[in-house]
Amino acid sequence: MKPSAARMPAVPGFQACGVACGLKPGGKKDLALIVSETPASGAGVFTRNRVQAPSVIWSRRALKKSKSFRAVLINSANANACVGPRGMDDCRTLIQTLAGELSISPGEILIASTGVIGVPLPRDTLARGIPRLVKQRSPKGWRCAAEAIMTTDLVPKTAAGEYTQGGRKIVIGGIAKGSGMIHPDMATMLAFIQTNATIDPQTLHHALREATEVSFNRITVDGDTSTNDTVLVLANGLAGNRPLRHGSKDYTRFVTALSEVSKSLAFQIVQDGEGATKFVTVQVRGAREERHAKKVATAVATSSLVKTALFGEDPNWGRILCAVGYAGVPVETERVVIALNGALLFKNGAPTRGASMSSLRKKMQKKTITISIDLNAGGEFAEVYTCDLSYDYVRINAEYTT
Amino acid sequence: MKPSAARMPAVPGFQACGVACGLKPGGKKDLALIVSETPASGAGVFTRNRVQAPSVIWSRRALKKSKSFRAVLINSANANACVGPRGMDDCRTLIQTLAGELSISPGEILIASTGVIGVPLPRDTLARGIPRLVKQRSPKGWRCAAEAIMTTDLVPKTAAGEYTQGGRKIVIGGIAKGSGMIHPDMATMLAFIQTNATIDPQTLHHALREATEVSFNRITVDGDTSTNDTVLVLANGLAGNRPLRHGSKDYTRFVTALSEVSKSLAFQIVQDGEGATKFVTVQVRGAREERHAKKVATAVATSSLVKTALFGEDPNWGRILCAVGYAGVPVETERVVIALNGALLFKNGAPTRGASMSSLRKKMQKKTITISIDLNAGGEFAEVYTCDLSYDYVRINAEYTT
Repeated sequence: MKPSAARMPAVPGFQACGVACGLKPGGKKDLALIVSETPASGAGVFTRNRVQAPSVIWSRRALKKSKSFRAVLINSANANACVGPRGMDDCRTLIQTLAGELSISPGEILIASTGVIGVPLPRDTLARGIPRLVKQRSPKGWRCAAEAIMTTDLVPKTAAGEYTQGGRKIVIGGIAKGSGMIHPDMATMLAFIQTNATIDPQTLHHALREATEVSFNRITVDGDTSTNDTVLVLANGLAGNRPLRHGSKDYTRFVTALSEVSKSLAFQIVQDGEGATKFVTVQVRGAREERHAKKVATAVATSSLVKTALFGEDPNWGRILCAVGYAGVPVETERVVIALNGALLFKNGAPTRGASMSSLRKKMQKKTITISIDLNAGGEFAEVYTCDLSYDYVRINAEYTT
Repeated sequence: MKPSAARMPAVPGFQACGVACGLKPGGKKDLALIVSETPASGAGVFTRNRVQAPSVIWSRRALKKSKSFRAVLINSANANACVGPRGMDDCRTLIQTLAGELSISPGEILIASTGVIGVPLPRDTLARGIPRLVKQRSPKGWRCAAEAIMTTDLVPKTAAGEYTQGGRKIVIGGIAKGSGMIHPDMATMLAFIQTNATIDPQTLHHALREATEVSFNRITVDGDTSTNDTVLVLANGLAGNRPLRHGSKDYTRFVTALSEVSKSLAFQIVQDGEGATKFVTVQVRGAREERHAKKVATAVATSSLVKTALFGEDPNWGRILCAVGYAGVPVETERVVIALNGALLFKNGAPTRGASMSSLRKKMQKKTITISIDLNAGGEFAEVYTCDLSYDYVRINAEYTT
């Protein structure tokens, strides 16, 4: 299965929509709705930040309490975070309004928010948009919904894929918003994935965790973790496949497909990272343990010095090696091998004399950069995705003043 | 004792010097020497990076083997790092040359390097400068030496202080270089402190660790840890004070004085941080444990989103609170209090309405910013020092191309 970002096909039994309530200037959409025609299994992963928005707390609780879900409501332009006790009340009001309009139970609704922190949610303004949302929802509404959840994202993000299981077509489709920020918020990542697969909530949760681990948990733009990060998945079972059992072959296939869609969304987030001019993959192999590989890849991918060098199109293996060294895992400099877009740069404790500087420069001008690091200490591998650190990152994050 | 950065008085029994050997363009100084006329106790703290330059390995070993020291040799413009086995040979050659010129044992010499990584040290060029260094050394040579260890530092860094113990004047003086880099190196921090105090090596080591913990270990410019970071201290005992015993009142006084000199050097490093326009102190109080306070302060001080907001002079408590939340320590949002240069911004889980935006803006325009965070979870405190993240940081680190 190849996920496609260009188109977002209908996911059987799901509808989506986005409308403008006036939170964003210029009549831009700011409220999105996803509806499942039938009760769907739900699962979610949330920010590990200790400071969490009421919507995160609300959805986490709902996933624990309820067995099935019918809708997800998402607003942008206001994170409804750090506003005191009224934050939860505002969640409740919006959910009750939506439940009334859809004639479903409030317990069947999940919620997410992104945008400015510390400003009370204009809940009445948003509530007035809900009837329109409900009316306008459509199986083709994904792009509208993807637009309505954007903050400073430059492009809406959608991805989908399908495969068959026992003659049944399983479709997975998702929308996401990324590392844009609206002052004075930080980069919030939201993703909402829908599938017609038949899968119970617990197994769906396992699958989502596995998929997230190789996708959303492997991207970094600036190392900050938001108060609102949320990934939700709904599975309505309309495919009629034999229910997916955790650990089965069919389950593995589902996880692979879910991972591909998640990766596509995650990559789009990085490509649209604030000020990003390059998509960077950091591969670490030869680690004694997988967590070592991930730690080293993350250290390199979050190093400001590495990221500015990539922006400057400078094949700076010294900064890469330095980040490898402070990742907090055992490293023997003499064993480390570093390559950049296939050109060997460092081996046997010293720089190689192989690639000419002019050919290296050409490789660095590519929009896609792969940094390969071999620790030669074992057989484990991990990959992390990031972007470069440019003037525009500083501009975007410095020039929004209150 | 108030350390002074403006002047660097003689430290009795010590001499210093800096000369140009041709590693830097434009006849700038690139080789420095510090000499103690009499055998001195020595202690050092070094980078925790797993990738370490030969000079770091050399000096660490020398401090273990030898009981006393007579000289420190430092070159800039070349880190002598990641060059394979010849790195140690080059250290040995330079040290033997210096030992010959000074008629001392090679074991009495410490060494440090900073600059470009992965380029073999031009040791013959440097060795030719050693006789000049030895000839020109002088009790007043500190500024020369401070200049010779600079990379992209804009100003040389010196600090000194003195106090009396039992009628004896104890003098402490030091030089440092900071978060400048020479392509393709990373920010290396070096500091060399001299004192006439009488103190055995082990006690001196304890004192240096205590002083470093509240100074050099509390500064961050971009979160990267170099392969060459080194702080060395020499104590020649010429003050004739009663030897300092670990844990005594006199020891505590010495540690305080050493900490003040170290802090002055550390602050100068941050003020001269690449592209820095502001000096930022992050204070965290009310933590259950001191390490919690330090973790939270470090998370805030290394957040790119916080640092770009400071550059943009934006009182962005949301980004600060977000970094508090992901620092990895228990935090109750409702208890957190955030103030910026004395203006209360966040309390009781919500922003305060106290300070007017125009008065806040004025506060943010200051060159010195203090972020105060009270976790209200205990009685522990920690402070971390940093600078903002500006266009110039990106320029300096992106535009040096190979």
